[in-house]
Amino acid sequence: MKTHTEYLHFNTAERIEFIHITDDVQAIVNESGIKEGLILINPMHITASVYINDHEGGLIQDYQKWLKQLAPMDKDMWQHNLTGEDNAYAHLWRTIMGRESTVAITEGKLDLGTWERLFYAEFDGQRDKRVLVKIIGE
Amino acid sequence: MKTHTEYLHFNTAERIEFIHITDDVQAIVNESGIKEGLILINPMHITASVYINDHEGGLIQDYQKWLKQLAPMDKDMWQHNLTGEDNAYAHLWRTIMGRESTVAITEGKLDLGTWERLFYAEFDGQRDKRVLVKIIGE
Amino acid sequence: MKTHTEYLHFNTAERIEFIHITDDVQAIVNESGIKEGLILINPMHITASVYINDHEGGLIQDYQKWLKQLAPMDKDMWQHNLTGEDNAYAHLWRTIMGRESTVAITEGKLDLGTWERLFYAEFDGQRDKRVLVKIIGE
Repeated sequence: MKTHTEYLHFNTAERIEFIHITDDVQAIVNESGIKEGLILINPMHITASVYINDHEGGLIQDYQKWLKQLAPMDKDMWQHNLTGEDNAYAHLWRTIMGRESTVAITEGKLDLGTWERLFYAEFDGQRDKRVLVKIIGE
Repeated sequence: MKTHTEYLHFNTAERIEFIHITDDVQAIVNESGIKEGLILINPMHITASVYINDHEGGLIQDYQKWLKQLAPMDKDMWQHNLTGEDNAYAHLWRTIMGRESTVAITEGKLDLGTWERLFYAEFDGQRDKRVLVKIIGE
Repeated sequence: MKTHTEYLHFNTAERIEFIHITDDVQAIVNESGIKEGLILINPMHITASVYINDHEGGLIQDYQKWLKQLAPMDKDMWQHNLTGEDNAYAHLWRTIMGRESTVAITEGKLDLGTWERLFYAEFDGQRDKRVLVKIIGE
């Protein structure tokens, strides 16, 4: 059994940004030499998500409009912001979008379907953030 | 350490359909011979979910009513549909319901609680779809 | 390769309760002796969640207010309650909050970011419930 641990680093230009990371994650799989196993990819911050869906700009716009409806960004709506924060919405958005993705590795490749793509979704950026990539297998 | 990889195939009669798959997944665990480990079950398509909840018809109706409220099916509401698609809602529903389930295997069995059942939830079916089942353990 | 299986037990005083479990889970990692691998933490009940977010009281209040908006507790709104249950809302809340968390173990520690904390969120408690903790690694 082998394990492999790596961290991706982000500091987004915009507060809210969706970044396609499938190729970065596959590069880590290649580097690990692991051919069969599981890979976990998760932000180490609680206002961001790693999720799998379509690499299509319209959908990425839809996500943002939809998240704003489900959990508005208004500072005054949320008790969390009484701590001096203004990012309560970002904690809720990441709950909807999910924290982590777990993906199979088969024959050295991320075993994804035709349209499955990994994204890092930043909801409160413009500062240093990390994504953990952990592989277990052989 | 052993790994085992299998794919379940679906082509639903209805566009939206919820299919109970616990027994199919346990059969793959049996076949693998793996007694202790983890199993990942995920659709390879971005308009479907694998989730764990109650095998109860009323709840499955509730899910559909609720998802239609949270992300309406109207084609005109979503930018994704400007690509010629009409399934933006299905991408959002699968975000709510989640992509994958990860389950423990203990003594050769899916280590599920009394009422935990695995479901494949199809939100844009009537075509060939696959679910990946990956087991790692010994 | 080693595996380790443990169950946490809960019986909450309140019907709805959020319990911080990071330290309990780290204690199980210590006991397992596993230094590198993956850990799965999930309730074995379908009206509860294990999730990772901020250990901050205001946010925990926000979650409850928000979940009540997204899926009201009214008994009459949901078909599941025609079975004699009154907890349909709890099945939907756990869908939003997610069933399970998967976390990396690195150098014998839960590989969490600075503010990441594990929570058991009970949505229909006041009875015996279990959370499964499964570790795989070496």
